[in-house]
Formats: sequence, C-alpha cells, structure tokens
Amino acid sequence: MTTASRFIARMLKNSTPSIGRHSLKLLPRVSSIYGTRFNSTSQPDPDRETGILKTYQVTKADARPVVSEHHEISFDDKKVLIPWEEGKTSYYQHLWLRDHCQCPACRHPETKQRLVNTFDIPRNIKPAGVEGSEAGLKLTWKDGHESVFPWDWLHLHSYAPRLERYLSPQFHLWGSEIENNPPEVNYEEVMASNDGVALWVAKIYKYGFCYVSGVPVTPQATKSLIERIAFIRETHYGGFWDFTADLEKKDMAYTNLALGVHTDTTYFTDPAGLQMFHLLEHSDGSGGQSILVDGFRAAKILREEDPQAYKTLSNVRIPAHASGNPDSSIQPFAPFPVLNHHPSNGELVQIRWNNDDRATMDRWDDLEDVEKFYDAARAWNDILRRQGTEYWEQLRPGRALIFDNWRVLHGRSAFSGKRRLCGGYVNMDDYKSRLRTLCSTRERLLKSL
Amino acid sequence: MTTASRFIARMLKNSTPSIGRHSLKLLPRVSSIYGTRFNSTSQPDPDRETGILKTYQVTKADARPVVSEHHEISFDDKKVLIPWEEGKTSYYQHLWLRDHCQCPACRHPETKQRLVNTFDIPRNIKPAGVEGSEAGLKLTWKDGHESVFPWDWLHLHSYAPRLERYLSPQFHLWGSEIENNPPEVNYEEVMASNDGVALWVAKIYKYGFCYVSGVPVTPQATKSLIERIAFIRETHYGGFWDFTADLEKKDMAYTNLALGVHTDTTYFTDPAGLQMFHLLEHSDGSGGQSILVDGFRAAKILREEDPQAYKTLSNVRIPAHASGNPDSSIQPFAPFPVLNHHPSNGELVQIRWNNDDRATMDRWDDLEDVEKFYDAARAWNDILRRQGTEYWEQLRPGRALIFDNWRVLHGRSAFSGKRRLCGGYVNMDDYKSRLRTLCSTRERLLKSL
Repeated sequence: MTTASRFIARMLKNSTPSIGRHSLKLLPRVSSIYGTRFNSTSQPDPDRETGILKTYQVTKADARPVVSEHHEISFDDKKVLIPWEEGKTSYYQHLWLRDHCQCPACRHPETKQRLVNTFDIPRNIKPAGVEGSEAGLKLTWKDGHESVFPWDWLHLHSYAPRLERYLSPQFHLWGSEIENNPPEVNYEEVMASNDGVALWVAKIYKYGFCYVSGVPVTPQATKSLIERIAFIRETHYGGFWDFTADLEKKDMAYTNLALGVHTDTTYFTDPAGLQMFHLLEHSDGSGGQSILVDGFRAAKILREEDPQAYKTLSNVRIPAHASGNPDSSIQPFAPFPVLNHHPSNGELVQIRWNNDDRATMDRWDDLEDVEKFYDAARAWNDILRRQGTEYWEQLRPGRALIFDNWRVLHGRSAFSGKRRLCGGYVNMDDYKSRLRTLCSTRERLLKSL
Repeated sequence: MTTASRFIARMLKNSTPSIGRHSLKLLPRVSSIYGTRFNSTSQPDPDRETGILKTYQVTKADARPVVSEHHEISFDDKKVLIPWEEGKTSYYQHLWLRDHCQCPACRHPETKQRLVNTFDIPRNIKPAGVEGSEAGLKLTWKDGHESVFPWDWLHLHSYAPRLERYLSPQFHLWGSEIENNPPEVNYEEVMASNDGVALWVAKIYKYGFCYVSGVPVTPQATKSLIERIAFIRETHYGGFWDFTADLEKKDMAYTNLALGVHTDTTYFTDPAGLQMFHLLEHSDGSGGQSILVDGFRAAKILREEDPQAYKTLSNVRIPAHASGNPDSSIQPFAPFPVLNHHPSNGELVQIRWNNDDRATMDRWDDLEDVEKFYDAARAWNDILRRQGTEYWEQLRPGRALIFDNWRVLHGRSAFSGKRRLCGGYVNMDDYKSRLRTLCSTRERLLKSL
C-alpha cells in the first residue's frame, strides 16, 4: 500500500466511524421477509411455515455485512480491502469494481443488464478517491464517474474470500414411506393466488413431486394448471398432450406395457424439467399403477454403498436418442452421464436414466470402464427396485401429479382397458425462475445478480 | 484363449472363407447414397454437390469393414476378437455384445429403443457358439438366444480400437468477405420439398447462417418458413415474435439502440439454436444495419493469437440472467464459459457471449483469473470488432436471415423510424435432428444408433 493510500484509508476510517453500528440495519433479516408469507392461510400444513422457503432461499448462515470498527478500509493500486466485523477481510480489484458499478448508467435499473462498456475500462484503472458512508463504499474514478456499492452488496458478492455460507438445499429425501403423507396442494388455491403457486413450487422443490387435488377432470383445466408455473414446453411430440394407449408416437411410453423407472427425455441437451400427469379416465380394465423413485436419495444410497459405481455413473457418458419417428432422430449435443453435478459446487443436480433410449456405447476412455459401467448400472438398478425405494400410487381423475424430471424417476405397471392421460412438460429454467421470483422479493433478487 | 475356443475359432475361419471378399458389398458406398441427391435441380450452386452434405455426414475416411482372410476370429471367456483386413483387430466384450444385441426382441426395430433387460445379463456371460457368415457374426447364448451383428455394424461401433476416422466437420469459416457471396436459398424451393430444406439446413450448418430470398412479406409466411425446420421454441418472451421498437419486453434488444455483437439467451441452460429475422418494414428512418460475426472463426483467431485468453474463456464460468420482467429471473442451471467444447472430442461447439446479461462474477477459483478474464474478454472483443471480422448487411423485406446462435454472433446499428421485424427460435436439438434425418438415409441413421 502506498503512503497516499494509507493516508486516505485512515481518512476513510475517520470518516466512517459508525459503519459498524449502522450497517446492521442495511440487510433485511431474512426471517422478517419470509416469516409470515403463508400465515394468512387457514389450512394447517407444515410446509406453509417459513421452513420450506428457507430451504430454497439460500440463506447466509453467518452473514454479517458489518464493517469492522477496529480495522481500516484500505486500498492500493490494484484493490480495495474491506475488513468485516466478523473478522474477515474482503479483496475487490478496481477493475472488477468498475465493471460491476451498480449505478443506473452502468447497469439498467430495471433489467439489471450491463450498460458500461467493459472493454473500454483501462486495464490498470484505480480510483481517484475512496469514501465510506452509511450508503456504502463510494469510489470516484479519474473521469469523474462515481460508483457506490452498498455494504450488503459487497458482503454478498465478496469473492476473496467468499463470505456467505449457503445452507445446503434442504431437500426432503424420501422412500416408499412417503405414501403415508405425500405432498399435496389444492387446485383452487393454486389458481387463486401467487401464494398458492409459491407453496406448490416450494413443495415440488423440497420433495421433487407434488399432487394437486380438486382438479377439474378436463384437459383444459390441466393445461391451465401447468401454466400457473410456466408455459408448456413443446417437443417433437407436441406440447400439451392428451392420449390413450396406442403406438402412434412410436415410443414405448405410448403403449400399455409396464415401464421401469426412468427419467424422460434423456435425448435432449436440456431434459424436461417438470412433468405433469393427470389421469382423465381409466375404464374397462385395471393396472397402470404409477411408481416414483427419489433419484437423489437413490444416488445417496449408491454413493454410500458403492462409491466406485457412483463414480462410474458420474463419469461414463451415455449416448441417447429418440428416433422412433422417421422424420426425427433427437440426440443431445454430447452424451451425458447418469449422475450430473453442478460444475462449481459439485452438488448432484440432474439424473438421466433411460436404459431403453441408450444408444450404442462405442466410446470408452478406458476399456475397464465397460465392465465397471455394467456393474454400476446393475447396482443402481438394484437400488431403484428395492421395496423401500419404490413409491407406488394409483393416479386418479381429479388428482394431478407433477414431478421434477431431473430428480424423480417414474414408471408404471402394465394395464388393461381404456386409459386416457394428459399432461405436459415445463422447462427447468422456467420453473426455477418461477420459484426464484415467488420465493424471494424483487429487491433481494436484483441484488443477487 | 482356451483350447475349445481356439478350435471354434479355427472352425470359424474355415466356415467363413469368403467374408473378406463379400463383405465389401455390405457397406453401401457413401458417394452412391449422397452423390446425386441434388442433381435433379437446375440452379447452379456449389453446395448442391455432394460436398456440403459430406461435411455434415461424418464419413469414415478409411472404413473397410472387411474381415481379414489371413487371421482368425477368436474368442475367450471375456471377448471376441475380430481381425480386419485393414490390419487392426477389434475387441468386443461378451457382456457388451449381449447388451447391444440388434435382434427385434432386444431392440425395437422401428424405435431402436432397447428391449433387452440389461440388468438380467449375467456379469460373466459368454456365448455357447460363435459363427461367422456373410450376414455377420452370430453368437448363440447359453439360453438359446441368438445375436447376429453385421460386419459393418461391428466395424462402425468398434470401440477398442475405434476404427472410424471421422472427417472433421468442414465448416466454412468466414470474415467480412462473405458479403460478396453470402449463402442463400429460395423460399419456393424450401417450401416445395424436403430436398429444398436439406439444402437450406446444410448451408446453415456449413456457414452458420443463410438467407432465404423471395419470402412473402408477412408474419404467417415467415412462421411457416421456420417451421420447415422444426417447431418454434417458446420462451418467457413468447414463441414467434413480431415487433416494433419499444421497451415493453424490458430487454435492450427491443429498443432502437445499437447492439454490439452477442449470442442470444446466454441465460438458458440450452441457448436458442437457430434464430430467424425477417424485416417486414422500415419506414420514415434509416440505420439498423445487421452485423454478423463468425464466432468459430473468431475463436480460431483468438487461439492462435492469444492461447492464454482462449484458455481463460474456455474455463472461467460466467453467470448470466434475464430478469427484466418482474415475474421472471431466468438463469442457467450453472454458469457456463464463453467457449464451450464437446466433452468427448474437444471440438468447440458453442459460444455464449452477451456482456449485457452477465451477472456479478463473484466465484473465482483463482484470484489471478480476475485479471486474466478481463484481459481475455478485451482480446476477444477486439477480434469481434475487427474490420475483417464484421459482416454488415441491411436486412430487407422478402429476404429472411437465419443463423446458428451457438456459432454466429449478431448485432445491429442504431436506427430511426418505424421498424417491424419478426422471427423466432428453433432448438439446437431439433435443428440437428432435421439435419441428421434429411442429410442421411433412415437405414444408415438407425445403424449409427
């Protein structure tokens, strides 16, 4: 640090003696935002409490955006250092700060799109002045432009070190015992208000599936229900579907055969996010029970019982295809493994499992992977078929099922008679967008970007 | 190899003396399938020749599925070994062969979906009998099931070693000189036949963009044109669009401002594959020239001029978002780098570049990456803005533009007056499916799966 900057830093310290006390007020307490969201509803439901939203709303466990009173804010040619009361010091490069200026000329206040010309920022930019106040850290650049970063923004986006401690998403992992108390919401409530939708998507997020009771037994009502989350995703098979068993679509899903548990659309680069099933009619026959399996729980069991198999299914890439119709052969841009993890935080985010749609596996990095793959697939299949894993339930008219196709595997038993089912897909990105906007405030959301 | 299997292998050799001579007939020559596809059209166009389809149709450069007459087919407890006339020997594990049985009971002949129960195959399965004929290699399993693998199938899917030598996709990389002879097809031809569509998608694949001339100046005709490739992808902004400049959509694309080159929808897990623009009207004003940049060519230049920058843009992950509308905040399931490569073959497959939609970058594996990123972004931006890189052209009514949004960046200059534009997106998976089915035969396609 230069002598000049030390001097300014001391000035800074002198000019902001009260940051430590006042900035606590700047960060809204999470509980005060979310605590009462569902208190106005009358029906008792544990997921209406704050808890379920906190499971999605990644919350800082030790967030204290309070600047230390006992240490100096300082800067040199490269960076600003901010000491927090919690004992850590954050490091922000000037170049990064200029690029991330939050003023309305640099970032559109409504869209949060970047307006500043990143590429015109001098490589070795540094501020002419640094000033702290209750509003935040103000940097004055040599061209006169001013950037003010609120303390809570700086704390939230501190990258060296990362300060926030995200609570792990509190998924409720379930086995067959979920049959005793499966998550369910009411159609009227979902259709009536965004709070109803918020409860619904929060349950889908927590459990990976949810029933909706009291749905009028029509395709129209089912379609409107899905659209409370987002528009229906169209595929080469169409958008909203309404079918009885035949082989018109040239896919085994459209027969009356039993279907082992699988995820849908492993042949897409971006597999379907949510899927809804609503049984409209089943007459003159029986069977056709639905089965759901919590894939995240199954993966957890696999990792515990057979770490090698978990590793194999996380690494071996499986080609997939949908080529039943003569005019299409859908394949993802690249093969994907069964177990897909977030590239930054390593969390399991997506399961792709459809043994029927697996194409010829003729690309192996290591010949030993061939046997390892079959061993791992067998171990995985065994877990999926265990009694404690499988959750069987008969769909019935008026009670729609929606599930997260990146987490929950589904299948059905064979059936006879006339069976009419309708439903549709929602993209993962659109469902997550809905979850994000319904289970947070606009202010908080924009600040996170 | 056991004595018994040696014996059988010798028998095999004796029983199939003519494989070497006859199997040449089994693989259709690629040129005979594709050579005359466009010969019936009258208009001269170099892309109508075989060449352009070969650039997509990955073709074996030294494919010779001819079993050697001079070496034995053999097998042991684990595998079958097939010596090819070209001097290589392929290795196929019994377990893998049983799982990949091509018979109609094991794989649905129309959908090519797997029917065999993979998980019931004994871990140490081996055939009771092995027999070769002109039809291929026949394995008889201990339960009596027979699997016949045609020689060309075995050669095509040989995984140890891989035998095929794919020709690199012959993209035509272009700079501003493309203005002299941009790829173009005719509306009537595209609407009239699948051969017209085949030529169109093959040009899009080769150049990353293509004009369509003679399009009726209506939204309806434009929509029908897009749908010749696939259904239009819906997003939170809608499906097919038709707009004049306003800020209704809360995105800078909907203003009359200049837009630097970018790719669309960096905020999706699966960015839009193709995009069409059709200018329906521009009156009482001027400006609004379109700019296209071949991102694959720009990346090639970057890799040559500044390998470190190429590496940085291939590794640093950029968070993106679309949050202009209060009821949505779209974000991909994970941040992606600017330059995305195929995980198996390492080829550049996708460019994501929209500096406006970049969210706060507060996750860095290495602090040095911060400066490296800004240096790399500046180098990349410099290449994108070079005169030889930019291809400017004025859109005009009746001439629709379609481009590959994973490869080609687009932008526009500012404009005045009333400007009405329509268009839509197509998913990459659906476009590639169309390309695959139009530029191959069904037989060949099914064999590749």
